[in-house]
Amino acid sequence: MNKSTKTKISNAVIKRLPRYRRYLKELQRKGVDKISSGELGVLIGYTASQIRQDLNNFGGFGQQGYGYNVNSLYNEISAILGLDKAYKIVIIGAGNLGQAIANYTSYFKAGFVVCGIFEVNPRLIGLKINDIEVMDYEKLVSYVEENQIDMGIICTYKDSAQDVADKLSFAGVKGIWNFAPVDIEVPERVALENVHLSDSLHSLAYYINKNQKKE
Amino acid sequence: MNKSTKTKISNAVIKRLPRYRRYLKELQRKGVDKISSGELGVLIGYTASQIRQDLNNFGGFGQQGYGYNVNSLYNEISAILGLDKAYKIVIIGAGNLGQAIANYTSYFKAGFVVCGIFEVNPRLIGLKINDIEVMDYEKLVSYVEENQIDMGIICTYKDSAQDVADKLSFAGVKGIWNFAPVDIEVPERVALENVHLSDSLHSLAYYINKNQKKE
Repeated sequence: MNKSTKTKISNAVIKRLPRYRRYLKELQRKGVDKISSGELGVLIGYTASQIRQDLNNFGGFGQQGYGYNVNSLYNEISAILGLDKAYKIVIIGAGNLGQAIANYTSYFKAGFVVCGIFEVNPRLIGLKINDIEVMDYEKLVSYVEENQIDMGIICTYKDSAQDVADKLSFAGVKGIWNFAPVDIEVPERVALENVHLSDSLHSLAYYINKNQKKE
Repeated sequence: MNKSTKTKISNAVIKRLPRYRRYLKELQRKGVDKISSGELGVLIGYTASQIRQDLNNFGGFGQQGYGYNVNSLYNEISAILGLDKAYKIVIIGAGNLGQAIANYTSYFKAGFVVCGIFEVNPRLIGLKINDIEVMDYEKLVSYVEENQIDMGIICTYKDSAQDVADKLSFAGVKGIWNFAPVDIEVPERVALENVHLSDSLHSLAYYINKNQKKE
């Protein structure tokens, strides 16, 4: 589909692509057709040369003296990220975080489809959250296998997270989005993104104190 | 309190400190007293030299041939991050995400104290979430001023986020934790951490596709 992924792209560049995409979407909304690497840099907060370097990884979409076409760059980056496809998702943990994430993914017009939520608490099993059924955690493996689920989102407590990851990996998911505050291990074929909210909160505490000291 | 913050520490190192701290906490739980940079490296997934370099920023806690004392390193890193203090917090947005974050911060034994949740939806105002009162968003500025709130957590939709950030900054918070999917601007004296969940989800989509191509 795209020629670009032939070359090895560094993780750092991949991590920046969603950010490029967000800004390009804003530009689309504002009706901007083309943008130079310099202008894009001011907007995003990277240098023009960083931007040229990053986007060159994908064969370079820009033309000297013209800049980047906003629509095609947006579409190319979306395709590179795999956002031109749809993903079937299960969420494990129907607590507030699981519910928030279920809501959150439903904002996406398409692409990320939450098929079911799994829970151990019998009082929650059978309920519906945004029209998504809460099912018994015991049925996770068979459900994932039968419905060819692509991705599992772990919204459980820390102590259950590795067990959930093992079951998801065994059942054949391709990726895991982990919100439990613990680093889990998965087979190499399973992609993993950890969201360590506490790390972000603790960094914030540092910067708050640093700013106070300056004053 | 600590001599270390005299030198300028790079953001990259700061971002890694919460991770060090998490692993040190695990070691504490397991009753481990001391650890070498090599062992710590295997655990965390950094090289021994990276670890020595990182921790040298703070004057170096390790002793040649002995390694690091787990308890003191944990305590020092906690102090550097400012986690030996308490922070008064307000959350803006009482939807699922706001509720999840209120729950989440309440796990911390101390340190992060959610004092109030603010909301525009009249049906939610007056309710209690985990014993925390949901108040009228109109009262945010006066509440933050009167109660000397340190930190605001933005759990609103994208379109309201900048307005919330402006009000929080005006009222004198020292830091903002932003979950709205938009980059907001704050005065230099206000520390800001953005949690862009969609960026993480989109990276995951990329790695899922990359793994598929390998197979």
